[in-house]
Amino acid sequence: GGEPVLFSGPCAVESLDICLEIGEQVKAFAQKNGFGFVFKASFDKANRTSGGSFRGIGFDRSLEVLQTVGNTLKVPLVTDVHESYQLEAVAEVVDVIQIPAFLCRQTDLLLAAGKTGKAIKIKRGQFMAPEDMQYAVDKIRSTGNQQVCLTERGFSLGYHNLVVDMRALPIMRQFAPVVFDVTHSVQQPGGNQGSSGGQRQMAPYLARAAGAAGVDGFFIETHPDPSKALSDGPNMVPLAEMDGFLAMLKKAWDLGREFQNYQLT
Amino acid sequence: GGEPVLFSGPCAVESLDICLEIGEQVKAFAQKNGFGFVFKASFDKANRTSGGSFRGIGFDRSLEVLQTVGNTLKVPLVTDVHESYQLEAVAEVVDVIQIPAFLCRQTDLLLAAGKTGKAIKIKRGQFMAPEDMQYAVDKIRSTGNQQVCLTERGFSLGYHNLVVDMRALPIMRQFAPVVFDVTHSVQQPGGNQGSSGGQRQMAPYLARAAGAAGVDGFFIETHPDPSKALSDGPNMVPLAEMDGFLAMLKKAWDLGREFQNYQLT
Amino acid sequence: GGEPVLFSGPCAVESLDICLEIGEQVKAFAQKNGFGFVFKASFDKANRTSGGSFRGIGFDRSLEVLQTVGNTLKVPLVTDVHESYQLEAVAEVVDVIQIPAFLCRQTDLLLAAGKTGKAIKIKRGQFMAPEDMQYAVDKIRSTGNQQVCLTERGFSLGYHNLVVDMRALPIMRQFAPVVFDVTHSVQQPGGNQGSSGGQRQMAPYLARAAGAAGVDGFFIETHPDPSKALSDGPNMVPLAEMDGFLAMLKKAWDLGREFQNYQLT
Amino acid sequence: GGEPVLFSGPCAVESLDICLEIGEQVKAFAQKNGFGFVFKASFDKANRTSGGSFRGIGFDRSLEVLQTVGNTLKVPLVTDVHESYQLEAVAEVVDVIQIPAFLCRQTDLLLAAGKTGKAIKIKRGQFMAPEDMQYAVDKIRSTGNQQVCLTERGFSLGYHNLVVDMRALPIMRQFAPVVFDVTHSVQQPGGNQGSSGGQRQMAPYLARAAGAAGVDGFFIETHPDPSKALSDGPNMVPLAEMDGFLAMLKKAWDLGREFQNYQLT
Repeated sequence: GGEPVLFSGPCAVESLDICLEIGEQVKAFAQKNGFGFVFKASFDKANRTSGGSFRGIGFDRSLEVLQTVGNTLKVPLVTDVHESYQLEAVAEVVDVIQIPAFLCRQTDLLLAAGKTGKAIKIKRGQFMAPEDMQYAVDKIRSTGNQQVCLTERGFSLGYHNLVVDMRALPIMRQFAPVVFDVTHSVQQPGGNQGSSGGQRQMAPYLARAAGAAGVDGFFIETHPDPSKALSDGPNMVPLAEMDGFLAMLKKAWDLGREFQNYQLT
Repeated sequence: GGEPVLFSGPCAVESLDICLEIGEQVKAFAQKNGFGFVFKASFDKANRTSGGSFRGIGFDRSLEVLQTVGNTLKVPLVTDVHESYQLEAVAEVVDVIQIPAFLCRQTDLLLAAGKTGKAIKIKRGQFMAPEDMQYAVDKIRSTGNQQVCLTERGFSLGYHNLVVDMRALPIMRQFAPVVFDVTHSVQQPGGNQGSSGGQRQMAPYLARAAGAAGVDGFFIETHPDPSKALSDGPNMVPLAEMDGFLAMLKKAWDLGREFQNYQLT
Repeated sequence: GGEPVLFSGPCAVESLDICLEIGEQVKAFAQKNGFGFVFKASFDKANRTSGGSFRGIGFDRSLEVLQTVGNTLKVPLVTDVHESYQLEAVAEVVDVIQIPAFLCRQTDLLLAAGKTGKAIKIKRGQFMAPEDMQYAVDKIRSTGNQQVCLTERGFSLGYHNLVVDMRALPIMRQFAPVVFDVTHSVQQPGGNQGSSGGQRQMAPYLARAAGAAGVDGFFIETHPDPSKALSDGPNMVPLAEMDGFLAMLKKAWDLGREFQNYQLT
Repeated sequence: GGEPVLFSGPCAVESLDICLEIGEQVKAFAQKNGFGFVFKASFDKANRTSGGSFRGIGFDRSLEVLQTVGNTLKVPLVTDVHESYQLEAVAEVVDVIQIPAFLCRQTDLLLAAGKTGKAIKIKRGQFMAPEDMQYAVDKIRSTGNQQVCLTERGFSLGYHNLVVDMRALPIMRQFAPVVFDVTHSVQQPGGNQGSSGGQRQMAPYLARAAGAAGVDGFFIETHPDPSKALSDGPNMVPLAEMDGFLAMLKKAWDLGREFQNYQLT
């Protein structure tokens, strides 16, 4: 469409109150700055480094919260799934189903997701060459579902470090729309003694770079107090700064869009 | 124990006949060369690059074949699981449950696997620092199950290439016994137009190196005719060459064992 | 200053005629689009993959050509050096001395370059962490020379592939001004049977991304017919497209500059 | 030949006394354990991360020390060069000239080294694909000098980390004999606040692995008190442990040699 899509929310469904607080504000910031908006929160942090980390408030309760947020704020919803059995219940509530990066090659999960008829958002595996994401897209399309997009969040350079190769954006846009994940791209996996660290200070640079290179949307996790967020706090954008961040981001996206057909011969 | 463990078989449960043929020969080669033996075959190739690739002969039929192989040859069995719902049926048939590398951080799958009471074999994610595999081991042990080992199969250097960092072996042996996966370490992910290529010619070098560095076992896929194997053929050891390969490998393992406590001050 | 600096020219000093042709046109394009301009050409391609590749037209002759270009077009000059003995003659002709990426840790070369009093432009080694470039800058400054800038051109992901980590730009700008090398960032080292290949089609994406992230200048090699350039042709911007490329680049740089002090708390 | 070659000594020519002490002992250990021996010390640490680090005791004085060591102990000598002008004086003293990893693509230095007629030992650049080292070998051979060997010391995984890909050993042995550098393979570049750190504890694992994979020699730096060595102390083998280390290494090399012609079909 004519504007970029913002997927945003807290990382996890922490509570209804905090989801409504975040969703309401981000929705307003998105509208003001020219972004479409999809509310995001995870019902389960299913792949934490350590088994002792926060997981969530429960599957059923999380879906209830998501549904209430969607109904109250009149916004579409996205959440991620981890095993096929979750898809039926999730598809009743959300508009976009996200496939986590680690799971982007799980054929059954992709096929089952595709068959729900919901839009599917697949994160590039930290171990996947960008051009190989074509096969993940094909798995969704083989179900007759044409609503599929990809997400870039950096590839693993082994060892507690992720690098974003901006070449991945135009490569993957050959297959499907591409969302740039501002938050997980500045994650430092396992770099914080059993939980993942992050480099929030790098988010503006990578976000502007990705926008200018050209993408179709952005994924940003936010929280009123990231230091108290139950996961991914070190790499979130603070809620109070989202308005300014989006204003900046929109200018970068406009630049990328102006030159989206520019090519050297 | 006093001898290395060999996990070996065809990549996939192609048919009962071929499983029996391979299992019988490899069992004999293992005994002759001083290896313990666990028969391996996958009931489902659940994460193929492309959706069009061979998946398997079906869940129930595959488990029947595995059980027949175990009973006929009197050998323990290992297979891999992909979603939690598979665990109950799988645990009734096999002795060792393998967690695929992509799934090594799926907490639910690890916990459910641990709770079966079976031995659990976790492959290091291509995106995981070796020291972070401690958390995966801890997830299994948190269920009261102490039978857990790790497997090294190379880390992703992005982009159709895996590299084995031999430092991962002693790092991971601090947490649990470690198996070296000869076959997948020489895989070239997605490097073959939608299926994974491989470098069989590198297998002897990496296998000797890993054995000499020190490990507790080896994982080797084999087939009477790798060019006809339904997956991972390019990186398999041909069945007719397994005897000689194991003889070589045993010498490398003996060297690693002789110096397993050697350290510089 | 108030405008970005463009370092540009053919890769090598091929002939006086071609240097004048390129220099005159690029100078005009730079002025038109709001860039400062420094003419670049190498007197020697000293580190070609293969010994059989084109090296140059000779040290003395190349310096004569450079001097003529500088005098004729009234533009400052940059060229790269490879051993200390070259510095005296080179410093008499050029305004900026470039230290090649492979040589960025050669202390003697850096000190001797610093002592010439000329501005020094150091390329980040493909093997150097961005934060460690501080030590290279310090070596120059230890000679009393404060005119030093750094250049980003991607780091080695082993094996015929370079990746630009955009985080390197803000990290290195803490120490010195930073130039983004559009041409060598899309090089594929050794990927072309003994000479280096390239991905010109990726240049616009990386150039926009780097400009938007924020840099102080750009390095772009160009040629009227890149397919006939004596080195690095596959990754050059064709001369006839430089005007449009710079117009795009200026917009990206303007964006980066607008937000150069933007930070998340 | 029939035995592996050991290149060993202190990292730098610290003093005549320490060179004689180390050289005498290592020569004895080498003979006892079945290694050929070449004494190594650098006259200049020309590429330290930081300009403030120890460089050496001077070019002329270092060469005098080396010559005295060679004459006194009756051992061949190896040292590394950094610029072409050093080659004439160095070639009068040493038997083997080492090209540093950062300089392995400097054509002039390689050609000038080749023309001395001395044996040339080229370290693989941390940024070079193993197969591209063929071109470095070809540059030496183009001078008519057939005495050339390569050295593996890990490739850069960016960012304060080196990884040894054991596949590099058989790949490079297709072109020339290969030496495994035990000391620099466990270096952590720039990982120690302006000087390089190291992981001595990993040396035995990598050394055994490389020996078992198959190489023609080893490079090991040693010192009576590594904590006082003027460079690379954290990754050296202590002199008092060299005898035991070589005994272990010889067994690994014997294994690699036994299977040097082993291949899968």
